[in-house]
Amino acid sequence: MRNSIQVCIAICLAFLLMPVEALAQQALWGKAPVVSPEIHENQTVTFRLRAPKAVKVQVTGDFLSKGVADLVENKEGVWEYTTPEPLKPELYGYSFVVDGLKVNDPSNVYMIRDVSTITNVFIVGGDRADLYKVNDVPHGAVSKVWYDSPSLGMDRRLTIYTPAGYEMSGKRYPVFYLLHGMGGDENAWSELGRATQILDNLIAQGKAEPMIVVMTNGNAALEAAPGESSLGWEAQPTFQLPKTMEGSFETHFPDVVKFVDKHYRTKANKKNRAIAGLSMGGFHSLHISKQYPDMFNYVGLFSAAIMPGKNVESPIYQDMEGKLATQFAKKPALYWIAIGKTDFLYKANEEYRKLLDEKGYPYEYFENEDGHIWKNWRIYLSEFVPRLFK
Amino acid sequence: MRNSIQVCIAICLAFLLMPVEALAQQALWGKAPVVSPEIHENQTVTFRLRAPKAVKVQVTGDFLSKGVADLVENKEGVWEYTTPEPLKPELYGYSFVVDGLKVNDPSNVYMIRDVSTITNVFIVGGDRADLYKVNDVPHGAVSKVWYDSPSLGMDRRLTIYTPAGYEMSGKRYPVFYLLHGMGGDENAWSELGRATQILDNLIAQGKAEPMIVVMTNGNAALEAAPGESSLGWEAQPTFQLPKTMEGSFETHFPDVVKFVDKHYRTKANKKNRAIAGLSMGGFHSLHISKQYPDMFNYVGLFSAAIMPGKNVESPIYQDMEGKLATQFAKKPALYWIAIGKTDFLYKANEEYRKLLDEKGYPYEYFENEDGHIWKNWRIYLSEFVPRLFK
Repeated sequence: MRNSIQVCIAICLAFLLMPVEALAQQALWGKAPVVSPEIHENQTVTFRLRAPKAVKVQVTGDFLSKGVADLVENKEGVWEYTTPEPLKPELYGYSFVVDGLKVNDPSNVYMIRDVSTITNVFIVGGDRADLYKVNDVPHGAVSKVWYDSPSLGMDRRLTIYTPAGYEMSGKRYPVFYLLHGMGGDENAWSELGRATQILDNLIAQGKAEPMIVVMTNGNAALEAAPGESSLGWEAQPTFQLPKTMEGSFETHFPDVVKFVDKHYRTKANKKNRAIAGLSMGGFHSLHISKQYPDMFNYVGLFSAAIMPGKNVESPIYQDMEGKLATQFAKKPALYWIAIGKTDFLYKANEEYRKLLDEKGYPYEYFENEDGHIWKNWRIYLSEFVPRLFK
Repeated sequence: MRNSIQVCIAICLAFLLMPVEALAQQALWGKAPVVSPEIHENQTVTFRLRAPKAVKVQVTGDFLSKGVADLVENKEGVWEYTTPEPLKPELYGYSFVVDGLKVNDPSNVYMIRDVSTITNVFIVGGDRADLYKVNDVPHGAVSKVWYDSPSLGMDRRLTIYTPAGYEMSGKRYPVFYLLHGMGGDENAWSELGRATQILDNLIAQGKAEPMIVVMTNGNAALEAAPGESSLGWEAQPTFQLPKTMEGSFETHFPDVVKFVDKHYRTKANKKNRAIAGLSMGGFHSLHISKQYPDMFNYVGLFSAAIMPGKNVESPIYQDMEGKLATQFAKKPALYWIAIGKTDFLYKANEEYRKLLDEKGYPYEYFENEDGHIWKNWRIYLSEFVPRLFK
């Protein structure tokens, strides 16, 4: 046999072609040769887009008080905008608007879907926003797992976070069930919610107990997130679904707990279980925790949709008064309510707190700025988790 | 306490506002009110984009022999193109080009990244392409897990597929290590590669043994895929990385096998281990399987980069002749080579097969049309997997 190095020299020439040819085949279109977004040391941010034929280019994002800002074109056809002020530490979303058409930033591969909208994202670090970053700390595992639900007659997908060291430790862990809002799915908390990073970082800092986090799909008509079930890629995500807030999801919830306790090393008792959710997930957490008063010791309502269930016949929504009395008689370790001042559900939450006050049911209350947005739900998660399982 | 239903009636009005307000806050921009792509029953496909201010709109994708096609505008500013012929069953990628600017289809949330390029995707079903769909069959779990690599001195992320029933069965399973190409990462095979769906479907059809599939990150300089390590979202993906094909990845591979055998219910022996990879991953599979001849019984080279290692000093690339002799003396159950006729690595693979022929080392060979593209790698995966662990 000829020396293998020699054998290969001839084909080395072919290899030299690889970046060109393979790029041409693997990646049909090249990356724009501009940096965007560029986060400067002073925390101002520059956005750039190469679009020499465009007449007008704007950026739109949640960091802009006016909603949009105009980019200015240079001689090379690269449009640019720099924020006049530093941005506060936060995870931000943005898109470009080119002659009226919303487009993603071709220089930034990081995008997250929220219901049917996909935006580019970036993080300005510092303060609480550092919790949203992947830092150089031990990382938990994130799994997409299918569980069987006899109540709903289907296999369903969930996201489960096991903390760093789970595989090695042989220990049992407490479990936190974390529920999404209307139009969301089992991916929502681990994507825009940054639950994986928040848990990794709080646990690494010693501020939270190592715990398992279970993120379900709250739309009981569906098996899984868009694109992940046999409905296929032709089914686009939608905000409104038939089997939400009508009792099915709440009724099936013991199927989830049973699956998790069977297949993971859990501390399978009320003392070591928490449930919380945002918006519709807060509604679900409220009803599940009172329906099964021996299941959860910690309850979190994040911007909760306090409102009647869609199906007034469902046993889930019957005798709310009696069920709350039973739940609070059993003295949950924490009943935590959080909402922003401008949330459209503020008044509903105020009414609900009055009701708890009238009955003398203890709860903790966290109020902050802003409304019904992911910024707040990341804050609530990072406030709630350190209070669990102490 | 007032009846809870009554309590809530007042806030019901607020709830009625939710779709508007919450959409306005959660999703900054509405979904385009057109359907795109629309896959017709006769397997032609229509693409649509609302862009009333655009001068020229094209679609570009891997189903177009000319690379691009022009859309035609109607009175409402919606541009449209229908393929003149039915498309063959396949997973396709596409983007729009609006006045020279490549943009994603705002009507289709399904996009997949390949190195630094993100394209919309759709599947025309039928034949082998049905393996790429999520079908109504039992589903395996997909986990993103961090393992410790003493050789590389870092924790690293991998993707692991456990077959449907893994949690319940108590059984031990064979393990297939599946490696990506240059510029890819531990997400590549489960995304464009559709490995999860291919495995789920082949196992459900009884054509493949239930197995664990481990998908590593072949760039030994990195801990994880772009955005999933402490390099953060400011690090954009790139094709060329320093620690690829220079020995580090191959040298560290026993760390992976050790982790997997320790933490999963594996059949921890050569008879029940396979390794395969595409392009650079084929190179890695070749060198790992000969370096550790008692580790893998099945070897797959998919469009393998048969070429010299970057670091000729690395012990991995020394004595290729002797190591191959040892490997084949131990009679691997399968040594499988696959490549497309127009692949730029065709000649290199031909040379390598000649070398194996000269030595009388047995292998199976699979040759088909096309070149160095994901279409072929999905075909090779779906051909290779049924040959394993029989």
